[in-house]
Amino acid sequence: MAEKAKLHHLRFRPHFKTHQSRAIGQWFREAGVDAITVSSLGMAAYFAPDWKDITVAFPTNILEMNRIEKLARDIQLNLLVESQEVATYLQEHLSHSVGIFLKIDVGYHRTGLSPTDQQQIESILKVLDQSPKLHFKGWLGHTGHTYSCRDTACIRSRHQQACEVMGTLQSTYSNRYPDAIVSLGDTPSCSVSDSFPHVDEIRPGNFVFYDLTQRHIGSNDCDQIAVAMACPIVAIHKDRNECVVYGGGVHFSKDRLVQGDNSLLWGQVVRSTATGWGTPIEGMYLRSLSQEHGIVKVPHEEMPKLRVGDTLLVLPVHSCMTVACMRQYRALDGKTISCWDGRSSDEGLLLQ
Amino acid sequence: MAEKAKLHHLRFRPHFKTHQSRAIGQWFREAGVDAITVSSLGMAAYFAPDWKDITVAFPTNILEMNRIEKLARDIQLNLLVESQEVATYLQEHLSHSVGIFLKIDVGYHRTGLSPTDQQQIESILKVLDQSPKLHFKGWLGHTGHTYSCRDTACIRSRHQQACEVMGTLQSTYSNRYPDAIVSLGDTPSCSVSDSFPHVDEIRPGNFVFYDLTQRHIGSNDCDQIAVAMACPIVAIHKDRNECVVYGGGVHFSKDRLVQGDNSLLWGQVVRSTATGWGTPIEGMYLRSLSQEHGIVKVPHEEMPKLRVGDTLLVLPVHSCMTVACMRQYRALDGKTISCWDGRSSDEGLLLQ
Repeated sequence: MAEKAKLHHLRFRPHFKTHQSRAIGQWFREAGVDAITVSSLGMAAYFAPDWKDITVAFPTNILEMNRIEKLARDIQLNLLVESQEVATYLQEHLSHSVGIFLKIDVGYHRTGLSPTDQQQIESILKVLDQSPKLHFKGWLGHTGHTYSCRDTACIRSRHQQACEVMGTLQSTYSNRYPDAIVSLGDTPSCSVSDSFPHVDEIRPGNFVFYDLTQRHIGSNDCDQIAVAMACPIVAIHKDRNECVVYGGGVHFSKDRLVQGDNSLLWGQVVRSTATGWGTPIEGMYLRSLSQEHGIVKVPHEEMPKLRVGDTLLVLPVHSCMTVACMRQYRALDGKTISCWDGRSSDEGLLLQ
Repeated sequence: MAEKAKLHHLRFRPHFKTHQSRAIGQWFREAGVDAITVSSLGMAAYFAPDWKDITVAFPTNILEMNRIEKLARDIQLNLLVESQEVATYLQEHLSHSVGIFLKIDVGYHRTGLSPTDQQQIESILKVLDQSPKLHFKGWLGHTGHTYSCRDTACIRSRHQQACEVMGTLQSTYSNRYPDAIVSLGDTPSCSVSDSFPHVDEIRPGNFVFYDLTQRHIGSNDCDQIAVAMACPIVAIHKDRNECVVYGGGVHFSKDRLVQGDNSLLWGQVVRSTATGWGTPIEGMYLRSLSQEHGIVKVPHEEMPKLRVGDTLLVLPVHSCMTVACMRQYRALDGKTISCWDGRSSDEGLLLQ
C-alpha cells in the first residue's frame, strides 16, 4: 500500500483502528509513514507518544474537550467538523491549535456534509476563516458504500464517483484555499483501484490484515488474510457433522456474512501448516456464534481427523472488531504483541 | 430471582457471565447466594477470590489444564463433560478433585449428550465411577432454544419439555446416583415459568440487567432493563431524520434484532429522567452500527430537541456482549464499577 501511494503521489495516512497496536504501528514507520488516522480520541491518546500528526476520522465529540485540548497541545491533531455549531464550540473552548477537515458525504450517507450544500459549507468556513486556532486542512470523505459492493468493478465505480465529487469541491474552492487537500480512500478502493484523480491523501486501514468481509466484496483473496483465531475444539458431534470450539462473540464480535445459499458464516476454517496456515477448508466454517461457543460445520471427510483439544485456525469475518475484542496478538514466533486496551474513561455503560 | 428460587426449593447458582463484575457479585451474596456459574475458566479465575463453588458452564477445554488444576486446588470447581475422551483426559492429568456435570442436550442442539444415548452416557459414568478425583454431580442442561421463542407460552413449553427430559434421566439413574442433581434454567425460563419439575438448581444470568433481546422473546418489559449506554450525539442530519452518536460495535458488540417490518434494530433510545431513564421513545432507535458510529433513526417531532453534545441513553440488544465490550459501569451516583478485563493468556489471535 505504501508503494501504491508513492506511485500515485498520494500521502499515505493509514488508519490504525484495525490493528490498534503501537508495536504494529512501528512497521508503518519503516515504510516511510509519518502521519496516521484513528477513529476515536482515546485511540489518538494511545498513539500520541509515537505519532505527532494524527487525524481522528470521526465527527468531533465535544464532550471530550479535555482530551482534545491535551492532544492539541502535544501533537498536530486534525479533527472532523460537519456543522457550524461544532466549529463555533471548538473556537470558543479550545486554547491550542488544531487542523480541521470538513467531512463530506461522498455517497455513503452515514456522516458528512452534502457536497452541494454550499450554505452549510460556507457557514463553517466562515467560522474557520475568523479563527486563529482552527486551521482548515481540506476535504475528507469515506467511501463506505464500497462495502456493499460484491465485485471490484462496483468498488472502482463508487471510488471514481467519490473522487469526482471531491474534485468538484476542490476546484470550487481552490482560489480561496489553494492548500486544501482531498483525503479519500478506504481499504476496498485503495486495494483495487489504480486511479485517484483529485486525491491528495489516502487512509486505508483494514488492509493491514484484511478479512473475510473484504474478500466477500472483492478487496483481497483469502491468502492475503494475516490474522486467524486459534480456537480449541471442546466437543465433537459426529451425528450432525459439527464440532464446538472455544471461540465466540467475546472473541470474534458478532459480524457475519450471508453465503450464497443464505446460510450465515461467522468465520472460515483454514488448514494449519508447519509455519502458519494455508488455504480454507471447503465447507468448514463457523455457522453460529454465542457468547463463548462457536459451532463449526465440518465436511463429512474431515470429521474423523478432529480430536477434542485440537486447535482450529479460523479467519475472522471482520478483523477490526475481532482485534477490538482480543486486544492482543500472538505472532507465529510465539511472541505476544499488545494493543490499546480500548478503555476510555469518558465512555460509560450506565447502571440503573 | 432469589425469592423465586426459594419459593420453589431450588438452589440458586446465578450465571455471572452477564455482569462479569466482582463488585456486582457481592450483591448476590446479600441475597443468600453462595455458588455461581461462569462461562470460561478465565472468568472462574477472576471470581475465585470471592466464590468457593463455581461451575464453568462450558464444555471443558483440555488445553487449559494449568488453570483447571489451580482452580481445583483452591475452590470447589465443577466442570462439564460430554465425552469419554475428556473424562479420561481429566482423570489422567488432574491431581486435585473436581465436580463433574454431564452436559445434556435438552433440545437446543448446541452442545451436550443426547439424553437417549445411554451408551455414551454409560461410557463417561464408567470413567467417573473408577476415578477418585472426578465426582459426578449430576445432569446439566441449557434450554437455549427458548431464545428463538417470541412469547412466554413458547418459553414455558420448551422449559417444561426440558424439565421432563431431565426428569427421565434422573429417574433412570436414581438408584445408582441418588445424590445427582438436575441443573437447568436460563433467564427466559426462570423469568416466565413457575413450574420446575425435577429441577434442583437454576442458573439464570442475563436477568441481572435484562436487555432488548430478552424483551423481544418475552422475558421482561423495557422498564426492567437496568443498563443503558450513554451515547454522545456527534452529528445531526435533519434531511433524513437521523443523528449520529459515538456508540458503535466496539461499545455494543454487533447483536441486533429484526423488527416487525424487517428493519434492523441495534439499540433503543429511552427518555432521560432526573434520576436515570424512563420509557423508550417510540421510533427512536439505532438503525445501524459500525465500529464507532451509531446511526439513530429519530421521529420527526424529536429532531428539533437534539443538540450536538447531548447524550442519548440507549438500551442494548444484548447486555452480556455489551458488558464484554465496555468492561466497566457507571452507576447513577457517578461511581465506576469495574469488571473482569476479559484477558486470558491462553487465548490467541494469531498473526501470520
